[in-house]
Amino acid sequence: MTLAHVQTRPASLPAAFTNELRALLGERFSEALAVREQHGGGGMHLANLPPQAVASPQTVNEVVAIVRACARERIPLIPYGAGTSLECHVGARHGGVSIDMSGMQRIVRVDVEDQDCIVEAGVTRESLNAYLRDTGLFFPVDPGANATLAGMAATRASGTTTLRYGGMRENVLGLTIVTADARLIRTARRARKSSAGYDLTRLLIGSEGTLGVIVDLTLRLSATPEAVSTARCAFPSTEAAVRTVIDLVQLGVPLARAELLDDVQMTAINRLFGLDYAEADTLFLEFHGRADEVAAQARRAAAVAREHEGGAFQWATETEERNRMWRARHQAGPAAVALRPGARPWSTDVCVPVSRLAECIRETKRDLANAPFPAVVLGHVGDGNFHVIMLTQPDAPEELRAAENINRRLVARAIDMDGTCTGEHGVGLGKQEAVRAELGAAVDLMADIKRAMDPHHILNPGKIFAI
Amino acid sequence: MTLAHVQTRPASLPAAFTNELRALLGERFSEALAVREQHGGGGMHLANLPPQAVASPQTVNEVVAIVRACARERIPLIPYGAGTSLECHVGARHGGVSIDMSGMQRIVRVDVEDQDCIVEAGVTRESLNAYLRDTGLFFPVDPGANATLAGMAATRASGTTTLRYGGMRENVLGLTIVTADARLIRTARRARKSSAGYDLTRLLIGSEGTLGVIVDLTLRLSATPEAVSTARCAFPSTEAAVRTVIDLVQLGVPLARAELLDDVQMTAINRLFGLDYAEADTLFLEFHGRADEVAAQARRAAAVAREHEGGAFQWATETEERNRMWRARHQAGPAAVALRPGARPWSTDVCVPVSRLAECIRETKRDLANAPFPAVVLGHVGDGNFHVIMLTQPDAPEELRAAENINRRLVARAIDMDGTCTGEHGVGLGKQEAVRAELGAAVDLMADIKRAMDPHHILNPGKIFAI
Repeated sequence: MTLAHVQTRPASLPAAFTNELRALLGERFSEALAVREQHGGGGMHLANLPPQAVASPQTVNEVVAIVRACARERIPLIPYGAGTSLECHVGARHGGVSIDMSGMQRIVRVDVEDQDCIVEAGVTRESLNAYLRDTGLFFPVDPGANATLAGMAATRASGTTTLRYGGMRENVLGLTIVTADARLIRTARRARKSSAGYDLTRLLIGSEGTLGVIVDLTLRLSATPEAVSTARCAFPSTEAAVRTVIDLVQLGVPLARAELLDDVQMTAINRLFGLDYAEADTLFLEFHGRADEVAAQARRAAAVAREHEGGAFQWATETEERNRMWRARHQAGPAAVALRPGARPWSTDVCVPVSRLAECIRETKRDLANAPFPAVVLGHVGDGNFHVIMLTQPDAPEELRAAENINRRLVARAIDMDGTCTGEHGVGLGKQEAVRAELGAAVDLMADIKRAMDPHHILNPGKIFAI
Repeated sequence: MTLAHVQTRPASLPAAFTNELRALLGERFSEALAVREQHGGGGMHLANLPPQAVASPQTVNEVVAIVRACARERIPLIPYGAGTSLECHVGARHGGVSIDMSGMQRIVRVDVEDQDCIVEAGVTRESLNAYLRDTGLFFPVDPGANATLAGMAATRASGTTTLRYGGMRENVLGLTIVTADARLIRTARRARKSSAGYDLTRLLIGSEGTLGVIVDLTLRLSATPEAVSTARCAFPSTEAAVRTVIDLVQLGVPLARAELLDDVQMTAINRLFGLDYAEADTLFLEFHGRADEVAAQARRAAAVAREHEGGAFQWATETEERNRMWRARHQAGPAAVALRPGARPWSTDVCVPVSRLAECIRETKRDLANAPFPAVVLGHVGDGNFHVIMLTQPDAPEELRAAENINRRLVARAIDMDGTCTGEHGVGLGKQEAVRAELGAAVDLMADIKRAMDPHHILNPGKIFAI
């Protein structure tokens, strides 16, 4: 049992406090066990740590009132979006109240000329993109899950399109937050760039709810490409696939997506979706632009892939076929689980300089070959970021130990290659030792900042680092 | 006389302290008046505030030793690069020692596959790009001045190419810093992206030397485009020029540069450089890519410009002619000064949502039309960022008052349009009231962070906000 599984035994919530929140929120304040368990953030190898209550505000004023009450009573407060984070970011490590932001769903404004929008915390990326459909704009950050945009900001999400469009770090212009002492603060205005003081926006992005509760976001949008073309291409080795992407980036080909799925992952999606894709290390590539540009990019990509002994490009130019391919990619986790029914997936990620990526994957697969469970590898090659999903049996402690060992070796390998212990999943409870191994004394600086912005440790306490 | 001009009268530096630094640095520690005055950060409308001594380290260990000595004696320490910042960022508001990083000039490594490099603080952008010339890579951030890269990070610099490549915010992967208590900390490793804890890199970028001394930077590089094409195009109005750029961005044309120079600025560069460019609001556009892509982009740009009554595109495809055009653009300041020999330029900048840019420039030019001095307007249109250079007489206090008034109105106008008081110049001493007007209580959060990371206020104290 790891540290991540321990929950301190909190005192009961004071009656005056629960009465206050019930008066404020009515049925949107709940102490029901089922509701609390839904908000405990467990899953995979991490235990569920239910909060003592769940508060579901619908307005900024309600958020401020909830934070004020928690600050007064020094009760922990854990911002919650869609619950799709992977390292028990939303578990109630020290008890307290989960503040479920999914009820704040207004799209406040969209400005087509400025290519930006303001949305409330609980808007999901899919609902935003559905709303934008007729504007010629879209929000490009795509982590797979239909997360809330505030959750994506809080975990510094990125994903399949980050190579071309950037992640949350690059696509958030500003945030409105509620601080630990219940002040409402806007971190930046709507300008594309600014040199006006410290970059509080970027400090909040990736802070995992420990520095403020995000209530709205000003997001940068991108022009919907005129043409989109998707292809998959099988390779004889991970090296050949990675090498293809490195060469394309160096040639300046603006790849929109460059996803690697290993042979086991390809088998998994074939089985789950009844497909007949080649069961080899495969790249899913996507090109965005005008029709002629996309065609030229695709021709160059095919030529470079051939140099690295890639197979023929299998094209998906129709929306339907394209969606089928990306659905298969985004359902990699469930597909992997279907390889071993009843298995509990443990999904981890690292990110290394791309020149080391093939080596890092090869060494990791060597570890996996000796594991007592199946596992898949898939990644965002252009960024040097990849995921491993290990399919352990829930009731086999020796499998959990083996998975822990592989994960520890993976993190050490990535750090040794001057990479990071997590490219996009974040730290939560699961990667605290890893972030210390990676950044050393920098973590002390983070803790100094935490103490300055939240002196009583009420905001998602115990995440990223122990307090 | 503004607050910005006041220097507190510091106590003399203790003899033990100066002896220690002299023993460490020899002649690279100086208390000579001429050297101190070179490091006072004055210019334009801001008084020169010389430090009490200048220390010029050549190694990281020397930086650590200097910071340790200053920390022990609680002596202010002001990081200094090339001295090209504009808001008296490096003035010794509270006395102390200027730490001149320009002697730290090693390019530590360049990795072509990973498209990144590690450079010491004092490397300038031009020397880095000269070094990279044969690698097929370049560092794209171009603020005009040949600043040091650490200085550019500290002020969150951007510039003419930010529209396409981003500014320092997007192009720094990590920093090594010396903290106020002389710890050496690396903010991130060499991965393209990471979710490992707070984004200390982005917090340091734009912190103007108040949170740490940058000793090296890991920078993201870009592939040198195969083809570059530059054109200028005169317009009947600011609106028409701005509208052209907005339309091109919405069409997804990847402009590498989109610079607006107003009619007065065009007159100024014609006079200084003996050119015969049209003396009207003019766009300087640049396209990067493969030859066929650049040609297609340029055709589309010319067509859109025609829709907005732009004149014929004047092409500069040869390197020499292109350099002439950009030299004229980058020498906008000296060219403006030549309009009124002996004048003291006051250069200010704001950034607004691009949909408000034309209106913001128009209203600003109305103010300038009534000013007792000439002035030019130029800007990075695609970002919504523009500069005003006011040419005041040094000995005419009524001109200084008029300039102050115009600057104050400009900042208020930008904030009123949901923009920022500075897009790229920074706060320093000159824009402290402005950043408070823009961000309100967010400035208190910044001060909380400052106190946490520098409790004795030794790092460039009094900048961004008063302590």
